[in-house]
Amino acid sequence: MNSSFSPVLMTDFYQFTMAQGFWLSGIDQREAVYHLNFRRPPFNGGITIAAGLESVIKLLEQFQFQSEDIAYLKSLKDPKGKPLFHENFLIYLKEMKFTCDIDAVEEGEIMFPYEPLLRVQGPLIQCQLLESLLLNVINFQTIIATKAARLFIASGGAPILELGFRRAQGLDGALSASRAAYIGGCSATSNVLAGKEFGIPVRGTMAHSWVMAFDDEATAFEEFAKNMPSQTVFLVDTYQTLEGVKHAIEIGNKIKLLGHQFLGIRLDSGDLAYLSIEARKMLDQAGFKETKIYATNELDELIIRDLIQQGAKINVWGVGTNLVTSQGQSALDGVYKMSALKDERGDWMYKMKCSEQMMKISNPGILQVRRFLNKQQYIGDAIYDLNESCGSNWVIVDPLDPTKRKSFNCPENYKDLLIPIFREGKKVYTEPSLDQIKQKVSQELSCFHKGLKRFLFPHQYPHGLEEKLYNRKIQLVEKIRGHREESASHHRSAK
Amino acid sequence: MNSSFSPVLMTDFYQFTMAQGFWLSGIDQREAVYHLNFRRPPFNGGITIAAGLESVIKLLEQFQFQSEDIAYLKSLKDPKGKPLFHENFLIYLKEMKFTCDIDAVEEGEIMFPYEPLLRVQGPLIQCQLLESLLLNVINFQTIIATKAARLFIASGGAPILELGFRRAQGLDGALSASRAAYIGGCSATSNVLAGKEFGIPVRGTMAHSWVMAFDDEATAFEEFAKNMPSQTVFLVDTYQTLEGVKHAIEIGNKIKLLGHQFLGIRLDSGDLAYLSIEARKMLDQAGFKETKIYATNELDELIIRDLIQQGAKINVWGVGTNLVTSQGQSALDGVYKMSALKDERGDWMYKMKCSEQMMKISNPGILQVRRFLNKQQYIGDAIYDLNESCGSNWVIVDPLDPTKRKSFNCPENYKDLLIPIFREGKKVYTEPSLDQIKQKVSQELSCFHKGLKRFLFPHQYPHGLEEKLYNRKIQLVEKIRGHREESASHHRSAK
Repeated sequence: MNSSFSPVLMTDFYQFTMAQGFWLSGIDQREAVYHLNFRRPPFNGGITIAAGLESVIKLLEQFQFQSEDIAYLKSLKDPKGKPLFHENFLIYLKEMKFTCDIDAVEEGEIMFPYEPLLRVQGPLIQCQLLESLLLNVINFQTIIATKAARLFIASGGAPILELGFRRAQGLDGALSASRAAYIGGCSATSNVLAGKEFGIPVRGTMAHSWVMAFDDEATAFEEFAKNMPSQTVFLVDTYQTLEGVKHAIEIGNKIKLLGHQFLGIRLDSGDLAYLSIEARKMLDQAGFKETKIYATNELDELIIRDLIQQGAKINVWGVGTNLVTSQGQSALDGVYKMSALKDERGDWMYKMKCSEQMMKISNPGILQVRRFLNKQQYIGDAIYDLNESCGSNWVIVDPLDPTKRKSFNCPENYKDLLIPIFREGKKVYTEPSLDQIKQKVSQELSCFHKGLKRFLFPHQYPHGLEEKLYNRKIQLVEKIRGHREESASHHRSAK
Repeated sequence: MNSSFSPVLMTDFYQFTMAQGFWLSGIDQREAVYHLNFRRPPFNGGITIAAGLESVIKLLEQFQFQSEDIAYLKSLKDPKGKPLFHENFLIYLKEMKFTCDIDAVEEGEIMFPYEPLLRVQGPLIQCQLLESLLLNVINFQTIIATKAARLFIASGGAPILELGFRRAQGLDGALSASRAAYIGGCSATSNVLAGKEFGIPVRGTMAHSWVMAFDDEATAFEEFAKNMPSQTVFLVDTYQTLEGVKHAIEIGNKIKLLGHQFLGIRLDSGDLAYLSIEARKMLDQAGFKETKIYATNELDELIIRDLIQQGAKINVWGVGTNLVTSQGQSALDGVYKMSALKDERGDWMYKMKCSEQMMKISNPGILQVRRFLNKQQYIGDAIYDLNESCGSNWVIVDPLDPTKRKSFNCPENYKDLLIPIFREGKKVYTEPSLDQIKQKVSQELSCFHKGLKRFLFPHQYPHGLEEKLYNRKIQLVEKIRGHREESASHHRSAK
């Protein structure tokens, strides 16, 4: 979090050794295509919410090597003490301008395995240098937005507050988590910097230390109410929870006489089902039917769902650690792979990474995702190659199970998910507001089968590779596995 | 990662409502003591390595409200549209100088549950405002240093490279993870910014895209070796791993003739035990006995240990996601609790947070940790109150199981772990270099019973509350649970 950080060094070291290699080999300016996609839906769930694009855009707009970045690279030595990077290569980096085309799905879009979230097309060296930065930002924000959506599904639409700052993974692990959590469905954050930077509503109650700073609990509540009459949510578990509720009611009655509202109590330990039911009874009996019960304490979507099933009377859920660190799966398994490269003559060569693991085999080509609709409901997605004409009959194949196929005949309604963001390094996209992105999530979710929201064995939404793309991929795999001499297939195209 | 971020807004919203409350109640300048400690050893392991102090120091040295921070706070409104914060309170914040005393354990120290990693003493309002920032930094770096140490234990001292940037939780989740991983035992990082900021060695090999950028694998290896002769670690699994090894050997032979070394191969998928054993044979038969085998692919300490037990021939381990996101436990459960507050007369009142959960009850007092030695071996730790004289016989009590006690009679050799870092807001500590901290970890580990390093059922190192402190705590709990009127015990002291 230092003022001098420029995004060009936010990357893995090998990007620079490879970049110098491309430059020395004279292929640095060859046009290439890379895609960013994930391979497994996070938490074995049904939905994945794309997020992070705006942060990527901001970083790419500053993508320019500064003198001190160059000075650092210049200082790196090989084991013999010689400079690792050539003087002229460093001059070349210093003068480099970002000139790629980028297409991406909008933030808030619901995505499925292997579907590109981002396509980068441009000089090989630039495409390569962007890899680590794109993955870092998109992987993290996407999984946090997804986690937040799961919490919001579990709460049945009751407000979720994101309170993760103190146990987030670093200061930016907190800041960008707050952003993504808001997109995914949280109502507010405790993170003040996120409030300032992104305009997210900031909320909080009080800490145990507030209560402990006064001689007794009732005095602590009364002082708080007197000082902050709009923030009367009392933390009741510092000493003994139900005694705390009594003290809160006592002060609630006092502030009522002064014309202030007793907004809520917060439970932070113990049996939240039992305590919330008891507290609700006590509040109701005292006439505080509108007073809300907040709950915190290592909550996650499964605990929230269980508590609701047990009849817990909780109105507002505060989730910290398990949201901002993405409990259950700490990272989206996003990858960024080259899928096409022009040869010396300017023809596209389609490229793929093979692997011993089928799941790790990448998709060749220049890809787009088409989402088919029927009466406002999405009925399936096809990943297809922009250079293959598909005609009116679309067949999709599950890349991990080719016996799973589905046809879409003459689909009239569809949308292509990847849209232009940068053209030759210039932004051609107007970012929506954070609230628009948040709205998009709920709008999009309403267009899918509701079984997609299940945590266990979610509805299987049809998605896969368009058949011609699938066949090309299989041919390429067979070529590689058959020890044929070439690892790439040539593909002439108009482009 | 914006130049305008100041550390004062890196906090939870309720710190500001409470701060204003303390100010309005006129107790903002009362002297308070807070401690930061964790409650459970991460990963159910035996060791926890303190880290993050230097980052905390850097942030605290910039702890000053800037005009735009104040402007943001000024913009916040209550539900009726009135400003949430008083004009004069905001002026007060703007003029606030950091004046606390901070004592902390040094980075690299091995710590146990409930032992303070940090003690803050100063005006109540300042102690409170620091909470979230201290927790964020210390929680994350401590758990990552600990995770790295576990990996290093698993590898039996073979080098571990930290390669987590692309799946870290945000950009700072990567940057500070690289720092902490180096402290805990990693040899190097792939994170270039961490190299620049902290002087950590940066390392890497090549990506699949390098191999895919050339017509065939052997050409790709040859081009890389030609361009970067000091970096000849070839990634062999882009198409078919053992074919890849053959190509690497083919190019290894070529570069040998040119006087260059064939440094290594990297395996990134498939059965790493089988493939490394086969690759080792092939390399040895070709005369490349010094050529190292690198392995990557979702490794963690348990997989590394298993692979070694299976006879895998791996020389260098690259660990990414599972290290930097702390797989298995995403956050240290560190808390920061008030333990003493002066009353109007200037006498200390000892404070504690009670709880329905014994584990969540905090410790009252002004605490220090004494570590006893016998012939270069640590034999036990006592958390004690600086205001209680302990005499020559020390008894420690396990706070979760009072039947567990241990005595230390007339211990001659000991060290107190918390040392002065700030006095009245001025730094009085000289930070060691990152390499000195790293060395401290291995030195300290060598002074503990080696069973502490076990992953399952580690050796139980004696640690607990000094008996007088324990008794005071129990009295306070009984007072609170017995519904006595006061929640705090008064304690007159010389201080």
